[in-house]
Amino acid sequence: MTARALLLALFIAVGVGGCATPVQVASTATSASAAVAADPLPSWNAGPIKQRLIAFVSAAGDKGSAGYVPPGERIAVFDNDGTLWTEQPLYFQILFALDRVRAMAPAHPEWRTQQPFKAVLEGDAEALTASGEKGLFAIVLATHSGMTTDEFSRTVKDWMATAKHPRTGRLLTDMVFEPMRELLMYMRANGFKTYIVSGGTTDFMRPWTERVYGIPPEQVVGTMLETRYEVRDGKPVIEILPKVIHNNDKAGKPVGIHQYIGRRPVIAFGNSDGDLQMLQWTTAGTAPRLGVLIHHTDGEREFAYDRRSAVGHLDKAWDEALRSGWAIVDMKTDWKVVYPVENR
Amino acid sequence: MTARALLLALFIAVGVGGCATPVQVASTATSASAAVAADPLPSWNAGPIKQRLIAFVSAAGDKGSAGYVPPGERIAVFDNDGTLWTEQPLYFQILFALDRVRAMAPAHPEWRTQQPFKAVLEGDAEALTASGEKGLFAIVLATHSGMTTDEFSRTVKDWMATAKHPRTGRLLTDMVFEPMRELLMYMRANGFKTYIVSGGTTDFMRPWTERVYGIPPEQVVGTMLETRYEVRDGKPVIEILPKVIHNNDKAGKPVGIHQYIGRRPVIAFGNSDGDLQMLQWTTAGTAPRLGVLIHHTDGEREFAYDRRSAVGHLDKAWDEALRSGWAIVDMKTDWKVVYPVENR
Repeated sequence: MTARALLLALFIAVGVGGCATPVQVASTATSASAAVAADPLPSWNAGPIKQRLIAFVSAAGDKGSAGYVPPGERIAVFDNDGTLWTEQPLYFQILFALDRVRAMAPAHPEWRTQQPFKAVLEGDAEALTASGEKGLFAIVLATHSGMTTDEFSRTVKDWMATAKHPRTGRLLTDMVFEPMRELLMYMRANGFKTYIVSGGTTDFMRPWTERVYGIPPEQVVGTMLETRYEVRDGKPVIEILPKVIHNNDKAGKPVGIHQYIGRRPVIAFGNSDGDLQMLQWTTAGTAPRLGVLIHHTDGEREFAYDRRSAVGHLDKAWDEALRSGWAIVDMKTDWKVVYPVENR
Repeated sequence: MTARALLLALFIAVGVGGCATPVQVASTATSASAAVAADPLPSWNAGPIKQRLIAFVSAAGDKGSAGYVPPGERIAVFDNDGTLWTEQPLYFQILFALDRVRAMAPAHPEWRTQQPFKAVLEGDAEALTASGEKGLFAIVLATHSGMTTDEFSRTVKDWMATAKHPRTGRLLTDMVFEPMRELLMYMRANGFKTYIVSGGTTDFMRPWTERVYGIPPEQVVGTMLETRYEVRDGKPVIEILPKVIHNNDKAGKPVGIHQYIGRRPVIAFGNSDGDLQMLQWTTAGTAPRLGVLIHHTDGEREFAYDRRSAVGHLDKAWDEALRSGWAIVDMKTDWKVVYPVENR
């Protein structure tokens, strides 16, 4: 998640009209429960992509196969926004930041006259645009720091319990991709350790990733804010400070993988140029390796976008995927259902 | 591992005579294989400490017990130097750094005249002392950066395969504490996820912790140097830069736990003031929690030291252990054997 992309997302978010039209949910989705029990990926349509994923995962666990991967090396990394859940019309973490500005405003009377906060409170897209990248970071930092890690975690958990998507009106946690959840489970059942490697901040993801994806806090690698330990009135706390110490995007993703995991993954999933270096780093290891791109082709059930999109820009990574033979998931063709709610 | 402690260690290391006397290994060590099969900790002598550790671990896995801990929350953190292996007469990582200065010297002719490298090459303790903390960091940074992560990992692995302790002449990997290895295995068998949380650098530990402790790279939290991803002649590499971005000592330990694990551990093991904050943070969580200090009381089989020691200084953490009722392991009394070699 680059500053520029975030900024553009922010403009869209506060812009009038852009987020108001409800998306028609396709009624053609087939219930996954109808799939045969032997199929580990019932939400995926039969085809070369499904076949390739199953071949990679099953070979990894087969000692006699050329695709065998020793158990400890079965590290799988997944981008979050646009790969495990929807990222349109804007990153959900920005929805959170804007909501937090509104919620925290009573304790910050100075925001009524101070940009970019004034613009958020008044829904003034033009003034927000004028505040630029600096304004964006001010919003993220002001809403993500100045409290203890325990307090922030509670705030995220509470918000996520009711936060809804601006277009579909569904809970954000119902905007996750059912085929990807299935794949996560299938890979774990075959001895893979599944990690999120996202440009979002780690502290924003950890409170709910276990419930939603089955990925525990210690397997979430994201952008990190500085923290400070202190004993306050006899009680130890960790305070979050308004400073980014690791930007887990683009070239920051392999760096984050090195720092937080310490092994080169054997398979990586992404959907945008922010994932290019993670896919390069993963697939440059000795075989077997696999890079996978999720291509947002389904404007009816989800959103259709790639090269020219403000959020989820897929340009260089697309070209390299074609050159390097990475697997490209065509959401429209390869996914029987998109969201879990379609299965209910 | 503080800079001051490292510096003092360095002085001892290059000082003449200090590291020359072989330690007499006690011949009274009882073979662990003689212990009854039902005993999960055969290298531990019966007593209140062994009882308390077994009670904590077995209760954690017992749903009916007040000491029950849900599986995902069973996070155990262990300091490394002085807790899982010997740290006297100096941190083994400093032995590595000094060896690396000597090994790298041919490629650095300027070191022949440049302090503190000249002092290391000439074994000049006085000049090394004069170079101060700044000199120490120059040595660590010069020997731990300027190469790719893959290259550094290979260097550490090769060095560790033959590196010997200056007093006992044993392989450093045979200077690990057998009772702690047993405890790690016992805790893992009871659903605990075991982590190293050390002042040493992460990249120095990861290449061998799985082999020696059964702790995989992704469960090693240490001091971290900055890294940079780049594609070099078409090949992606991660280069290590000469800059500390996380100092995983003292208040840096709970911060490291938050950043790298994201959950508060239920049990923490340390042996010095560098572990005080980690033990505070761990034990301040809601019950059940346990803080454990390893007290180096065995001058015959290992080394005897605490409050006044340059390396492994145990002063404030000792006082707080007594006040807070943390478990204190008396190595001389509680451990039947110290090193694995005594079992062969």
